[in-house]
Amino acid sequence: MVLEKLISNAYAESLKNMRFGDKSEELSEIQSIILNSKRIVVATNNEKKFKVVFDIISKVCNAEVLMLGISTNSADLTRMPALSKGLIAVDSTDADVVISRGRLGIPGSGSLLLIMDKKGRILTGAMSSSSLIHKNRIEDSINLELTIALERIGILVKK
Amino acid sequence: MVLEKLISNAYAESLKNMRFGDKSEELSEIQSIILNSKRIVVATNNEKKFKVVFDIISKVCNAEVLMLGISTNSADLTRMPALSKGLIAVDSTDADVVISRGRLGIPGSGSLLLIMDKKGRILTGAMSSSSLIHKNRIEDSINLELTIALERIGILVKK
Amino acid sequence: MVLEKLISNAYAESLKNMRFGDKSEELSEIQSIILNSKRIVVATNNEKKFKVVFDIISKVCNAEVLMLGISTNSADLTRMPALSKGLIAVDSTDADVVISRGRLGIPGSGSLLLIMDKKGRILTGAMSSSSLIHKNRIEDSINLELTIALERIGILVKK
Amino acid sequence: MVLEKLISNAYAESLKNMRFGDKSEELSEIQSIILNSKRIVVATNNEKKFKVVFDIISKVCNAEVLMLGISTNSADLTRMPALSKGLIAVDSTDADVVISRGRLGIPGSGSLLLIMDKKGRILTGAMSSSSLIHKNRIEDSINLELTIALERIGILVKK
Repeated sequence: MVLEKLISNAYAESLKNMRFGDKSEELSEIQSIILNSKRIVVATNNEKKFKVVFDIISKVCNAEVLMLGISTNSADLTRMPALSKGLIAVDSTDADVVISRGRLGIPGSGSLLLIMDKKGRILTGAMSSSSLIHKNRIEDSINLELTIALERIGILVKK
Repeated sequence: MVLEKLISNAYAESLKNMRFGDKSEELSEIQSIILNSKRIVVATNNEKKFKVVFDIISKVCNAEVLMLGISTNSADLTRMPALSKGLIAVDSTDADVVISRGRLGIPGSGSLLLIMDKKGRILTGAMSSSSLIHKNRIEDSINLELTIALERIGILVKK
Repeated sequence: MVLEKLISNAYAESLKNMRFGDKSEELSEIQSIILNSKRIVVATNNEKKFKVVFDIISKVCNAEVLMLGISTNSADLTRMPALSKGLIAVDSTDADVVISRGRLGIPGSGSLLLIMDKKGRILTGAMSSSSLIHKNRIEDSINLELTIALERIGILVKK
Repeated sequence: MVLEKLISNAYAESLKNMRFGDKSEELSEIQSIILNSKRIVVATNNEKKFKVVFDIISKVCNAEVLMLGISTNSADLTRMPALSKGLIAVDSTDADVVISRGRLGIPGSGSLLLIMDKKGRILTGAMSSSSLIHKNRIEDSINLELTIALERIGILVKK
């Protein structure tokens, strides 16, 4: 209920034009949701991609980290594939936290990684260039995106 | 119609499990939509933020660049404020390209900049950390986000 | 977890092209979520509209039925105002079930009522014509929409 | 540009709390977009379903009416399958108007038909009960939904 209360307060501030940027208690709550999660579902059924996420996220939290049983490729026919993949995991599992990765928008738009809570609310994320631009291995891209997604809300990943 | 055809082909590839990442013709088309746009609307009515976007985007294209006449603050009560702001501009103007910037997700989740086409399809984007983490001036954050959003699809901005 | 399992099964069926319409256990689960909810939030801060929903929903379930503390009018600047209103309630409260009502799409498109669960998943809904077409009192429209929304998933409301 | 101007005005009214329901010029514009469309795409590759939509829509407008070349079944793994199907057609064709039909929400939630414009903005729609409740033939359900979707914005279909 803490997060709901923070969101309710932020919405009330926005309605009064009294909202002046992110607050430290909001950031703390986002960190707390991720660090204290018991069950994290990675919205992929690709073992290689899962392994990269598993290795990093296991450094920062004690959660059970699971791969999704069903394919999320169908999300590539939506406007925001990374978001749609995440919602497949939110809606079909009882995860506390979902980590998804996929295309940002239309074909050619590069990739987006998102971390969501159990209701599908977006906690943080990160992007990579189109693979045509960066030429990195996909494992390295996922590694970098997840590390940045965590760092931008103040969770540092030890190398 | 070029973009529609590329999307149709990419969707057909995904359905056949024959999709292997972004293609150079998709990237070229995204670049072409942005570089050849005639009318770009920035989804803000804040003159200071508009000015930063205007200065950068004017370096890479010849479009008329306009500020939105109406406030987009109401988007802060949606799940993806940056996306919702952009769609306000898409739906209420005849822009070829829309540039929007706002919160990524819930309060505390930091910011997201998106570049969309006239139908609201996402072409590229970039994120910043929560302002509590980075402590930069907002003008510098917008400048950096827009520059990265363009670079990740291969459009370089001269300093 | 029952609903998550049903959704997971349905998604797996769709992926195998073995999905042949709604199933009775899915319908039973939707009924069960609504009839056994403990806390229903109506996504409005308008007392008159709340009262209409309260009177009907109280006939079919024993839940605490609450009005939302904050205005949802900002949702009128989104592509699906009724949906956006519901998500404001989902994200800012700990409701088991949310009932929202607002415009279906663009201005002029008439109204939509939605019943969602705690994650924002849509359980059922109903529409009215544009108010220019039907000329009914708003209380009568809401009454009718909610009754139809419940009936279409097999929950009959006694007059 | 007429629709963009109407939407812009409606949004400005909402921001000033001066919005009092649908307006006749908004309804006229929605009717005009549908009645004067040149190219309507039905977001299905099922010939039987296409035929039902074709027969009705051809009574009210002179447009070329086309079936989508690619399957939209993948949309069943999204939160609003009918909406996602429609957006597949919007994004992959140059239709003026798109007609889509699919599940409203989660499995068991019954069906939704939507009529959208070229940008994916929702013009009108209609719902059916879960097929477990109504027991109608699917052709009859589609026929009824499309007729109601048109009537609720003031377009009458001759029998």
